[in-house]
Amino acid sequence: MKYWTLTEPDIDRIALGAGILGTGGGGNPYLGMLMVRAQLREGRTVRVIRPCDLAPDAFVLALGNIGAPTVGIEKMEEGDEGVRSLHALEQYTGRKVDAVIADEIGGSNGLAPMITAAKLGLPVVDADGMGRAFPEVQMTTFFIHGQASQPAVLADALGNVMIVTQATSPEMLEKLMRAGTVAMGCTAHMTTAPMSGDFIKRFGVPHTVSHAWTLGDTVINARAAKMDPVEALIARTGGSLLMRGKVSDVGRRIAAGFVRGSLTLTGLEAFQGRQMVIEIQNEYLIATEGDRVLAMVPDLICIVDSETGRPITTEEQRYGLRVSVIAIPAPALLRSDIALRSVGPRAFGYDFDFVPHLGAPMDAQPVAAYDA
Amino acid sequence: MKYWTLTEPDIDRIALGAGILGTGGGGNPYLGMLMVRAQLREGRTVRVIRPCDLAPDAFVLALGNIGAPTVGIEKMEEGDEGVRSLHALEQYTGRKVDAVIADEIGGSNGLAPMITAAKLGLPVVDADGMGRAFPEVQMTTFFIHGQASQPAVLADALGNVMIVTQATSPEMLEKLMRAGTVAMGCTAHMTTAPMSGDFIKRFGVPHTVSHAWTLGDTVINARAAKMDPVEALIARTGGSLLMRGKVSDVGRRIAAGFVRGSLTLTGLEAFQGRQMVIEIQNEYLIATEGDRVLAMVPDLICIVDSETGRPITTEEQRYGLRVSVIAIPAPALLRSDIALRSVGPRAFGYDFDFVPHLGAPMDAQPVAAYDA
Repeated sequence: MKYWTLTEPDIDRIALGAGILGTGGGGNPYLGMLMVRAQLREGRTVRVIRPCDLAPDAFVLALGNIGAPTVGIEKMEEGDEGVRSLHALEQYTGRKVDAVIADEIGGSNGLAPMITAAKLGLPVVDADGMGRAFPEVQMTTFFIHGQASQPAVLADALGNVMIVTQATSPEMLEKLMRAGTVAMGCTAHMTTAPMSGDFIKRFGVPHTVSHAWTLGDTVINARAAKMDPVEALIARTGGSLLMRGKVSDVGRRIAAGFVRGSLTLTGLEAFQGRQMVIEIQNEYLIATEGDRVLAMVPDLICIVDSETGRPITTEEQRYGLRVSVIAIPAPALLRSDIALRSVGPRAFGYDFDFVPHLGAPMDAQPVAAYDA
Repeated sequence: MKYWTLTEPDIDRIALGAGILGTGGGGNPYLGMLMVRAQLREGRTVRVIRPCDLAPDAFVLALGNIGAPTVGIEKMEEGDEGVRSLHALEQYTGRKVDAVIADEIGGSNGLAPMITAAKLGLPVVDADGMGRAFPEVQMTTFFIHGQASQPAVLADALGNVMIVTQATSPEMLEKLMRAGTVAMGCTAHMTTAPMSGDFIKRFGVPHTVSHAWTLGDTVINARAAKMDPVEALIARTGGSLLMRGKVSDVGRRIAAGFVRGSLTLTGLEAFQGRQMVIEIQNEYLIATEGDRVLAMVPDLICIVDSETGRPITTEEQRYGLRVSVIAIPAPALLRSDIALRSVGPRAFGYDFDFVPHLGAPMDAQPVAAYDA
């Protein structure tokens, strides 16, 4: 079996790339980076494994945070939430966990399993259930392809833990988890039902930890070479530039455990005179110009600082920021008919079908470090 | 050990008395009565035992419904919620349940454990944790005296089940249970943490099933004898008549899983020219006349139909009803300093201390049927 043992520079790259893939949500990646770095500085290690190296019957848990990112940056994790969740599920199921995986690679949730993995000496699988971030629990390729709705665990920083032992659907699980999250103060740690190694191999979005690293590396290399990081990102992802402009209005509120609102951007340079509106539910969902929808879920709408390529999350947005909006094709697993029922525009209440005008998605590849 | 095996007339009396003790809440007792009666008609039995007959280490679970009574009369129980909850706790703890008990004797919750008891052949303890009804989970003599906050189970009619395995306080348990209840559609079935027989003997409000039966019997006998059921109730409970009048205004809304609002009554007969306002959080909490508080939690404020003595729950209140308001002294266990912190007026947000101007509470006695 090949391992990729993470270094601090790796974590910087993964955090940067996860921030880009987070499409504005998934939790603040800077905080996630600090928490994983702290694990390394305390002498622990984070080892990543490829999905192909999972035993077919491996017992795998998907970990991550749930809630409103605007709250998550003020009410931070305590650090042992994942350990408590995992132990609660081990006790409830009577099985030992073999590996952990991110429900979503986007934002701090791409890093969240690494904290628990470092503390418990477990490997992190180089894959996830979204290839990006989405606001709701059931919006993973895991649930889309039949992951059980239970048992799932919610834990907070103060020590509260609840287990959903029966949920009639993944949507009902989302409702119960969201309600518990609000009761816990609008952020919490979630662990969904156990999955087998075989299931992860079939339905996980593959090599997304590697993909995040590659995107982060692309931006860092462009900066070092005094090249445009936005152009470098577009070249690397097969994405397209939707807008270069200035944030001219931010409407944002916390509602029912989510950050909701919209963002107005006013074009600069080649985009002078144009205006774009981006709608938000934790993540950037839809980019419109007048009546025209330029990009939509599940394709990725990423907003980065125009100078540095640093991803800007929904809770960081404010008037005057100079940003570039990049659309990136969603992974193939999110574009199937069955997936679009859960993550297409209609799943978010929009009255139109998904139009994949951004070309074919690129397959993410494992990083070279596996062979080191 | 002495058993009291309930008959249909017993259940009618208990439902009527539980309705009176419910102080407007605890769930609609008519529906509770129908559900228990259905158990008897299906050939099952409900056996009640006195707390003194519990083994010291008996494993006892308190069962009941949680939510907004206005919703509870439209979205009814399916009937097996308690069975699912109880089995979830048996599985989680690895112990078999010996007996069940009501968290609150008031309203349909005084009858709720009987449904599960009948289905599983378990005895119901002749006691409860309130001697009345209160709106929140932590407002029981059990929690006041140290019942664990976990494990506690919430289950709904559709099959959803969640277990709170760690709660930092009974108040946090209330928050998590309330949030889950709202997610489940504003009504659900709750089972709190296991208690020992010894604990129930010390901290349960004793013989409240008997007490409910006695109050129901009092009203039924008064009706049969063409006497005033309101006067009969007052004589039997040591209560006092606060008002005889007409409902002249009802303000009622569903908020955060509760029914909240207030009731205005206009005096009739000897109360002509007087007006009373009663504030509601599922139950009738406070009765005021102008600036004067006439009765307050934890003392019981009961509203019954002036003609028939039938208790009128908060969700049934409407303009024009002819009602009598009776205040009944709370059980001694609710009047201690430690109890008043959880169930006194300040626990409900009022800025005054409890004034027990209603005299000493009467001790409830086991019904004669135990000796039959």
